[in-house]
Amino acid sequence: MARFRALVAYDGGEFHGFAPNEGVATIGGALNEALGRVTGTPVAVACAGRTDTGVHGLGQVISFDAPDDVDPARIQHSINRMLGPTIAVRDLGVAADDFDARFSAKSRTYRYRILNRAVPDPFLRTTTWHLPGDLDLAAMNDAARALVGEHDFASFCRKKVVTVDGVELEADLTREVRSIRWARAEDDLVDHWITATAFCHQMVRAITGTLVEVGLGRRAGDSLAATLAARDRQAAGALAPPHGLTLWSVEY
Amino acid sequence: MARFRALVAYDGGEFHGFAPNEGVATIGGALNEALGRVTGTPVAVACAGRTDTGVHGLGQVISFDAPDDVDPARIQHSINRMLGPTIAVRDLGVAADDFDARFSAKSRTYRYRILNRAVPDPFLRTTTWHLPGDLDLAAMNDAARALVGEHDFASFCRKKVVTVDGVELEADLTREVRSIRWARAEDDLVDHWITATAFCHQMVRAITGTLVEVGLGRRAGDSLAATLAARDRQAAGALAPPHGLTLWSVEY
Repeated sequence: MARFRALVAYDGGEFHGFAPNEGVATIGGALNEALGRVTGTPVAVACAGRTDTGVHGLGQVISFDAPDDVDPARIQHSINRMLGPTIAVRDLGVAADDFDARFSAKSRTYRYRILNRAVPDPFLRTTTWHLPGDLDLAAMNDAARALVGEHDFASFCRKKVVTVDGVELEADLTREVRSIRWARAEDDLVDHWITATAFCHQMVRAITGTLVEVGLGRRAGDSLAATLAARDRQAAGALAPPHGLTLWSVEY
Repeated sequence: MARFRALVAYDGGEFHGFAPNEGVATIGGALNEALGRVTGTPVAVACAGRTDTGVHGLGQVISFDAPDDVDPARIQHSINRMLGPTIAVRDLGVAADDFDARFSAKSRTYRYRILNRAVPDPFLRTTTWHLPGDLDLAAMNDAARALVGEHDFASFCRKKVVTVDGVELEADLTREVRSIRWARAEDDLVDHWITATAFCHQMVRAITGTLVEVGLGRRAGDSLAATLAARDRQAAGALAPPHGLTLWSVEY
């Protein structure tokens, strides 16, 4: 057996998230099934970011084991024939034996894209959040600074309960955000770039929604430190819709 | 009453073409109904190009009559709320009384976009034709020269029968092509730009399909004059799929 690594893009709007889930279409489920057929052995992929329903992947990284006599180019070609065009394997090759798409990753970068004007765009409707109204990007970048660094992001994440020795405990939601940047792109687009060592559930969409409230003047720009300290999901803003979000790249 | 003019974009994949057709979703039907509700008067829009099922619009132009006390900005805003995001009115204003989106147009420009590489792209699957295989663009541009100018395009169009005084006649399919240009764009995209005074039914897709056969080396580059002369749809190549085609602009 050998360890393989692949770079994967997908339209999240066509799937119920990445994590395999019996009976519904998921990206991980589709990859496992197709890779199993092509390699002739059961496959369970690891991934760098378990994107939610509706969230896209451009630079998702997966790893998996398969017999070492399988040609990587043939796997890639076959998978793209079987799963394309909603899932595309952009690159695939043999990796080091100890490479794990999830645990070897040093950080993940997401892009959240907003179409910021009155008139909608039919061709961007599945990949951007259409949001009319003036966004004060300078205020959003200023406010975002309070989130950079290592913090408990309980105010921006869905609670997660883990069971240890039969006792239910809340999972630790401490994460390290490396950078947050809001920038205008071409044609009335606004991009939110965020990099962290790891993200908890719904964290990017909650941060995006909260900073958009700042940008629209509906939330004080200097309030984010207090929002973090509250450790209460109700303290932060509404979730931004999933279809504006893309897992852009993974850094190893 | 006043004559209004609007610039319209739409995702053709969501509609059974532009031309209103009872019982199915069409762009023209949706516009007529929404404009009728907003202006309070029955509306029948004229359009510059009656795009087929699956064909997109970016620079479609429409004209229609409505009471002259209706504010254009309000019509645009209301239509976008009612029809967005699959149809977007990009601009709307009062036009000269004799302006007609169809009959005032001097020419139409279409873009046909191909993703020309082995790996598919999930985000371009509804707006490009995914076509692996090397395309010889120089040969395609050379071959296309035979099509420029005024010709009978019967080899590239669906036959149309018109009834005159009870006698069925084949409609004249003579059109004037102003320019054809194939060019590489960013990220493995290939664009076919074609401008003509007018197009007959399926003409752009038949020309695209035929020139792609030239580009793949499956059809002689110097054969297009003979293809035109045959005046037989069987003489030309297969139709390119509709989702790569966009009505790009209309020149008045």
